[in-house]
Amino acid sequence: MSKVLKALQTEANDAIQSTFISLTKRLNYTSSPLLDAVEYALLSGGKRMRPLLLSITGTMLSANKQDINVASLAIECIHSYSLVHDDLPAMDNDDLRRGKPTCHIKYDEATAILAGDALQSSAFECLSSMPLSEYAQTKRHELIAILAKASGMRGMCQGQSLDLLATGETISLDDLIKLHQLKTGALIESAVSMATCLSPTANEDTRKLLSVYSKAIGLAFQIQDDILDLTSDTATLGKPQGSDLINGKSTFVTHLGLQGAKDALTVQYEEALHALEQLPYNTEQLKLFTQYMVARTH
Amino acid sequence: MSKVLKALQTEANDAIQSTFISLTKRLNYTSSPLLDAVEYALLSGGKRMRPLLLSITGTMLSANKQDINVASLAIECIHSYSLVHDDLPAMDNDDLRRGKPTCHIKYDEATAILAGDALQSSAFECLSSMPLSEYAQTKRHELIAILAKASGMRGMCQGQSLDLLATGETISLDDLIKLHQLKTGALIESAVSMATCLSPTANEDTRKLLSVYSKAIGLAFQIQDDILDLTSDTATLGKPQGSDLINGKSTFVTHLGLQGAKDALTVQYEEALHALEQLPYNTEQLKLFTQYMVARTH
Repeated sequence: MSKVLKALQTEANDAIQSTFISLTKRLNYTSSPLLDAVEYALLSGGKRMRPLLLSITGTMLSANKQDINVASLAIECIHSYSLVHDDLPAMDNDDLRRGKPTCHIKYDEATAILAGDALQSSAFECLSSMPLSEYAQTKRHELIAILAKASGMRGMCQGQSLDLLATGETISLDDLIKLHQLKTGALIESAVSMATCLSPTANEDTRKLLSVYSKAIGLAFQIQDDILDLTSDTATLGKPQGSDLINGKSTFVTHLGLQGAKDALTVQYEEALHALEQLPYNTEQLKLFTQYMVARTH
Repeated sequence: MSKVLKALQTEANDAIQSTFISLTKRLNYTSSPLLDAVEYALLSGGKRMRPLLLSITGTMLSANKQDINVASLAIECIHSYSLVHDDLPAMDNDDLRRGKPTCHIKYDEATAILAGDALQSSAFECLSSMPLSEYAQTKRHELIAILAKASGMRGMCQGQSLDLLATGETISLDDLIKLHQLKTGALIESAVSMATCLSPTANEDTRKLLSVYSKAIGLAFQIQDDILDLTSDTATLGKPQGSDLINGKSTFVTHLGLQGAKDALTVQYEEALHALEQLPYNTEQLKLFTQYMVARTH
């Protein structure tokens, strides 16, 4: 990861921490075992990919910093809740996440289910109740509509359901792409959509190009995930290596082979860069982000 | 239940069904096993207490019918998701709900977790994306703020967490009241708050009186629940009788005895009616609702 991007990632992580603290104060979240579990899930590191993407895109499009932070916290709440629930014994049954015990191991299953549920509510509390710029005030319900769509029946939950159904089954490449577009792509795309929604300057052409861009990196992210599951090791990944294969999941690697998956990754990478090149903005930071997405090691 | 109230309940139930169908069409929810589970959880009957309360209050306050239906569906999505998750083996471990297999028994645990998650997203998709009257368009984020607050760290999830922590423990009556205000009261209160939010006519006095009213019936609801758990039978309740005692839970009955709980119910009932009497509206239907709340047998 480049120094510039690393600094932006640290900034995005700090913004999540401080915006969550303001949210707990403003909304009077009082100390409780549930809040402990929520903080454990939300604030124990992670790559902050979605907030980083939202922040870089929003800054490029002249969105207000506070608006970006509020939207970033909301999307990270959704992402964190999905990890907590996906790790549950009835789902992927993972004990380790980011090198630490998963939420249900650290606490218990009931607390993990509730922490995930509360994180989802917090995402929408955040978007509906946290202070925003005058411009973004009028965009609250649009931001909520984008995030709710990406989270539920037309996004992440549907994708996770299809993923569970596909476990142990052979599914077509088209179905695999659709599954991942819903499971991880939709939320990544929503980071870009929310940033665009917060921009007073982005026009329809920009919106369309960024949509192409975010679809490409969403897919690239998953292809790289599948490659890493096979080629990286547990210490680097922070979760068991080879777990997709052990769980009998179709992946881009099982479909295309390792080289084929790498080639498919390159195709998405180039499509993403091509979309960026056509934008009338300084896309340097988004290019760094895109390079990182396809070159990341965990 | 009086004939008038029964008719209103049927109407509220029909509105949930038809509004959910319009939502699935408008938002392109396609057929899937997850949608089956969501529909199973949402559309398999239930008393529709919150939509009924929202609808009666909203109608009394001259809110628009379509707005009421959208808000009612949203609140019922939250309520349904909470039942699906509360029934899970790691939580209350109930096999029966409304006389039918619970979601994780009918499908499986993973599907039940995801169906609950998706129902929560749908609640916020519904409030942010479904058509509303011109007046309510400007109230979307307020409606969302009310519902998100009632659902998460300051409401239902926090209450359920406190309830689990209290299982097998003796807690004070004050803590029991606080627990239930969060676990079930917050969502019942939000039905009234959302209805008031949708009203172009309700003033601050009305808002305050209805807040007193909804707090009283929220507590009355739980006291009656505890009484029924001891005095009703499985066939009438649609769930195992005496499960609170078996699970070692503090209830209003364990604290106050059966007669003491009945007396406490009367106090809340009278407080609710007293608030209604001061309202400058025709409160006949709300009175019927209140009578039903304290006299219900399941």
